Amino acid sequence: MGLTIGVDIGGTKIAAGVVDEEGNILDIHRVPTPQTAEGIVDAICDAVSEAGKGYEIEAVGIGAAGYVDDKRATVLFAPNIHWRHEPLKDKVEQRVGLPVVVENDANAAAWGEYRFGAGKGHDDVICITLGTGLGGGIIIGNKLRRGRFGVAAEFGHIRVVPDGLLCGCGSQGCWEQYASGRALVRYAKQRANATPENATILLGLGDGTPDGIQGKHVSEAARQGCPVAVDSFRELARWAGAGLADLASLFDPSAFIVGGGVSDEGELVLGPIRKSFRRWLIGGQWRPHAQVLAAQLGGEAGLVGAADLARQG
Amino acid sequence: MGLTIGVDIGGTKIAAGVVDEEGNILDIHRVPTPQTAEGIVDAICDAVSEAGKGYEIEAVGIGAAGYVDDKRATVLFAPNIHWRHEPLKDKVEQRVGLPVVVENDANAAAWGEYRFGAGKGHDDVICITLGTGLGGGIIIGNKLRRGRFGVAAEFGHIRVVPDGLLCGCGSQGCWEQYASGRALVRYAKQRANATPENATILLGLGDGTPDGIQGKHVSEAARQGCPVAVDSFRELARWAGAGLADLASLFDPSAFIVGGGVSDEGELVLGPIRKSFRRWLIGGQWRPHAQVLAAQLGGEAGLVGAADLARQG
Amino acid sequence: MGLTIGVDIGGTKIAAGVVDEEGNILDIHRVPTPQTAEGIVDAICDAVSEAGKGYEIEAVGIGAAGYVDDKRATVLFAPNIHWRHEPLKDKVEQRVGLPVVVENDANAAAWGEYRFGAGKGHDDVICITLGTGLGGGIIIGNKLRRGRFGVAAEFGHIRVVPDGLLCGCGSQGCWEQYASGRALVRYAKQRANATPENATILLGLGDGTPDGIQGKHVSEAARQGCPVAVDSFRELARWAGAGLADLASLFDPSAFIVGGGVSDEGELVLGPIRKSFRRWLIGGQWRPHAQVLAAQLGGEAGLVGAADLARQG
Amino acid sequence: MGLTIGVDIGGTKIAAGVVDEEGNILDIHRVPTPQTAEGIVDAICDAVSEAGKGYEIEAVGIGAAGYVDDKRATVLFAPNIHWRHEPLKDKVEQRVGLPVVVENDANAAAWGEYRFGAGKGHDDVICITLGTGLGGGIIIGNKLRRGRFGVAAEFGHIRVVPDGLLCGCGSQGCWEQYASGRALVRYAKQRANATPENATILLGLGDGTPDGIQGKHVSEAARQGCPVAVDSFRELARWAGAGLADLASLFDPSAFIVGGGVSDEGELVLGPIRKSFRRWLIGGQWRPHAQVLAAQLGGEAGLVGAADLARQG
Repeated sequence: MGLTIGVDIGGTKIAAGVVDEEGNILDIHRVPTPQTAEGIVDAICDAVSEAGKGYEIEAVGIGAAGYVDDKRATVLFAPNIHWRHEPLKDKVEQRVGLPVVVENDANAAAWGEYRFGAGKGHDDVICITLGTGLGGGIIIGNKLRRGRFGVAAEFGHIRVVPDGLLCGCGSQGCWEQYASGRALVRYAKQRANATPENATILLGLGDGTPDGIQGKHVSEAARQGCPVAVDSFRELARWAGAGLADLASLFDPSAFIVGGGVSDEGELVLGPIRKSFRRWLIGGQWRPHAQVLAAQLGGEAGLVGAADLARQG
Repeated sequence: MGLTIGVDIGGTKIAAGVVDEEGNILDIHRVPTPQTAEGIVDAICDAVSEAGKGYEIEAVGIGAAGYVDDKRATVLFAPNIHWRHEPLKDKVEQRVGLPVVVENDANAAAWGEYRFGAGKGHDDVICITLGTGLGGGIIIGNKLRRGRFGVAAEFGHIRVVPDGLLCGCGSQGCWEQYASGRALVRYAKQRANATPENATILLGLGDGTPDGIQGKHVSEAARQGCPVAVDSFRELARWAGAGLADLASLFDPSAFIVGGGVSDEGELVLGPIRKSFRRWLIGGQWRPHAQVLAAQLGGEAGLVGAADLARQG
Repeated sequence: MGLTIGVDIGGTKIAAGVVDEEGNILDIHRVPTPQTAEGIVDAICDAVSEAGKGYEIEAVGIGAAGYVDDKRATVLFAPNIHWRHEPLKDKVEQRVGLPVVVENDANAAAWGEYRFGAGKGHDDVICITLGTGLGGGIIIGNKLRRGRFGVAAEFGHIRVVPDGLLCGCGSQGCWEQYASGRALVRYAKQRANATPENATILLGLGDGTPDGIQGKHVSEAARQGCPVAVDSFRELARWAGAGLADLASLFDPSAFIVGGGVSDEGELVLGPIRKSFRRWLIGGQWRPHAQVLAAQLGGEAGLVGAADLARQG
Repeated sequence: MGLTIGVDIGGTKIAAGVVDEEGNILDIHRVPTPQTAEGIVDAICDAVSEAGKGYEIEAVGIGAAGYVDDKRATVLFAPNIHWRHEPLKDKVEQRVGLPVVVENDANAAAWGEYRFGAGKGHDDVICITLGTGLGGGIIIGNKLRRGRFGVAAEFGHIRVVPDGLLCGCGSQGCWEQYASGRALVRYAKQRANATPENATILLGLGDGTPDGIQGKHVSEAARQGCPVAVDSFRELARWAGAGLADLASLFDPSAFIVGGGVSDEGELVLGPIRKSFRRWLIGGQWRPHAQVLAAQLGGEAGLVGAADLARQG
């Protein structure tokens, strides 16, 4: 058995990477993300063709944000691209002449971490991806669990606050409104507004105003010990850890893997998440505790995972 | 293949039933539930021996409230009996001379419904049991999913209200404080206190005071159209349905099965639960919807399920 | 003593009315609301001059949305007009040559209702105005209570849901996000999205889509018995009544007066508010209950109240 | 003008003190608190008679927990004593032969602080008393504001968490469940349970178990820097400060006074309360901020306040 291609569809770039059986990326090709839904399909096909030149490729795996159906063929709904019941598998197969598997991007990233990253050696793993939003993936009994209709593991949209914050999904109080990169920035802005004297480092990294605060500023300021930035990470961790405790009540995995851009800060955010997880874990004294691990594959987890899922067919 | 015995440990009675491969109960034997932890072990053994007389029994399955370990041998913690790391499997095996499987009682009930009740024909089913508290079970890919350490599917203790009601588990805001028989009675008492003129039917069924309201009164009064009783069921359904919507985001099953004493009221409670489920389901227009089904096995689901799990070994 | 002029600054029109000692409006003059902050000051002066022609006017009262200082002279902050520490009293006095009193518009409306509307005969009255947002006014011991710095009675911004909906004020979970005209429309849209089959009347009044729902549609549909519209009013009332119960715990008035556009629906909304108020009132069996009354002066309450406050100096 | 007696009814002792016009306690007499409602009336009369011996007393003020009617004569409802529509004023007047004023104890304490303590020089003051529960008092325009029916300022029972903790009052989510001495102990127990390794100091002060933690232990441990104790005070302060921000939106006083046993810890608790207050204050940059002051009269505030209210008649 040999090589497969994994595709990651980002907001600015589409990446196609040739991946071997050990999860190594041998080659990667990137193209800018087009504006239109159809243009993105074209760009995916182009990137796959380019990346695969000179390699013998067996299959293609595509990670896509949104609902993917149980056949791993159709994107039922994508939040950022106008795909509605989009037959992505068929379109790309016809163009590139290879078997294609479409997978939710957070599922693909979870699979990547399970196979080649922090999840190696575990049979039951829950991954959460703290990016702009909050995604996730479920591995139970060494298999990716997609639900009956393909749309399981939408962790970001469980309700953690009744009558809480509005979410892009149309509901209120979704977990990703409280534990995500976007939430982190909101926490920082609110705190900088209320107590600017505790945010001098943070404000100094941007344009000096609370409104100008960006995610990277919060991370950098937290590393420098800025009280508002540290407190913003703590608030994020409070919600992330409490949610993991709920997932432990539901899934009882041996490990949680925390990935996504927010987790790049490592112990700065993982330490407080572990503390909050333990604080809220039900029956903690009577049960073995799941580990809370940092993801290892970084931004490539989805691409590598999609490629591996395609290999498994 | 042949017969197995399933055991259900209730607050007042312990029942042991001989169950065949189709889930039929051929014979059942009941003994009073003793006061002491050790006495209960004795009573289980006695009930099993009595029930099995005259039958060729292959194995015994015991459904127990609480945490059961991943070997299905030890009760790590029971909420109502003083069992802490109780080696129930070993004790009973030694006494009755048959292979024993211990299972969480809500898991056992879920399995019973999946095999012989409302879940027949489904591969991926989530069961919730609305009894005094709220329990549950997970079937994914035709297997009961117990988690890595055996304590998965503790649905009753996911946090649905931050800083919410105290729970017997030591945490706050647990789902079972809002969706369970106990919650139903609380809703009715609070409403009867605030607006007794809307609770005349309900109050008339008990001792005339809000404090005297019991679960059976609420059900009966709701059937008679008592506004406070109907509204109490609606409140319960509001929380139950919203929680099912969360479970749909997580598990995406093809069906939910709602069992437990509260569900005995049938459409009186299932109708509003379905409505609330649909109200809170994320992305409802872009995905197939899980069915919300009434359990079919009633109070025997746990016994039948435990017997069947024992058969499967 | 004679006539005064009250000014109401609306989003589209500025109204100046000549008001007598009994609260009758003898004459009213309206001008379009200009775009700029300074233009609005000019328009106020013009409207006052025009309205007063042919009358002997003693003083002018201006109701303004936002924080007004304790001297009733300066608008510290206005949410909709770019007034920041705006010396409105001085500017208008110089131009119109009459004593001017500036008052928060909801305070003015409360005073109007207290003096000439639903509050007549009460010494201690709390008014809430359910318009686009939620405003209020406090009368204790027959005096309007403005707080030490002039910014009391900002009822709309007490926090009723921790970590709740974002508010224009920068905070989260403010009451006006749950009890206001804007909230009502949100409730209707969400419900129409989830269960369009229960919203046929409501959707038929607008452009057929949930997004096209406006406040007037919800009112009309509720009058026609549309389930989604009725349920939206009930949800609004749930929050409004619970908040009134809190205000009863704090202020213990003899009456609450509910005004603003939402209250134009009369018993359709007041009935459920009263029910919810009673449901949540603390110690309800041991205390006299405040009445919950519909406002009587409609949209003129603020103008009449401002005029009367100017008379009292 | 001369001397009056103030009475404080505690759980273990009833204190009657002779107080002069400057709020000085000249003499104090304490008797054990009897078990029965009628016995307490007797004990009050005895204590007053004993305390007054040798003084010329003009009047008696009694501070009582619970609802006191608008005539300051009848205890409508007391939470800890079986008084229901108890004509306390009449009973005591007949026995001691002096004019008697009955006042809610938190109101009396607020008045004491306003007149002789932290509130001197302020016209508009809101007091909160963080004792076992949370009480309060309102001074607006230099007068104690009791509401139309006498039961205003029940701050402890405004709802800060919908569907939150059960309260002794029968409602849920009341502020005193989150900001009070009882809440502080709950916070400490929960945290000591979850992370005992961070509670060694705290656990060492009691019987070594989380259940054995008492309020005094939390205070002492916080002074010694115990992480769990410090965090428990911070949680209390989070809720206390957020509630004060709500009260600022409502009352806009020039000062808040924080009294009660919890406030004895001084800056340990007041510092975090101020920080939280500022965090949640609406429109903070556009308005003058109320001060948050420590009470000065300690446990005698109620007695002194009641005596002074009696003097004022």
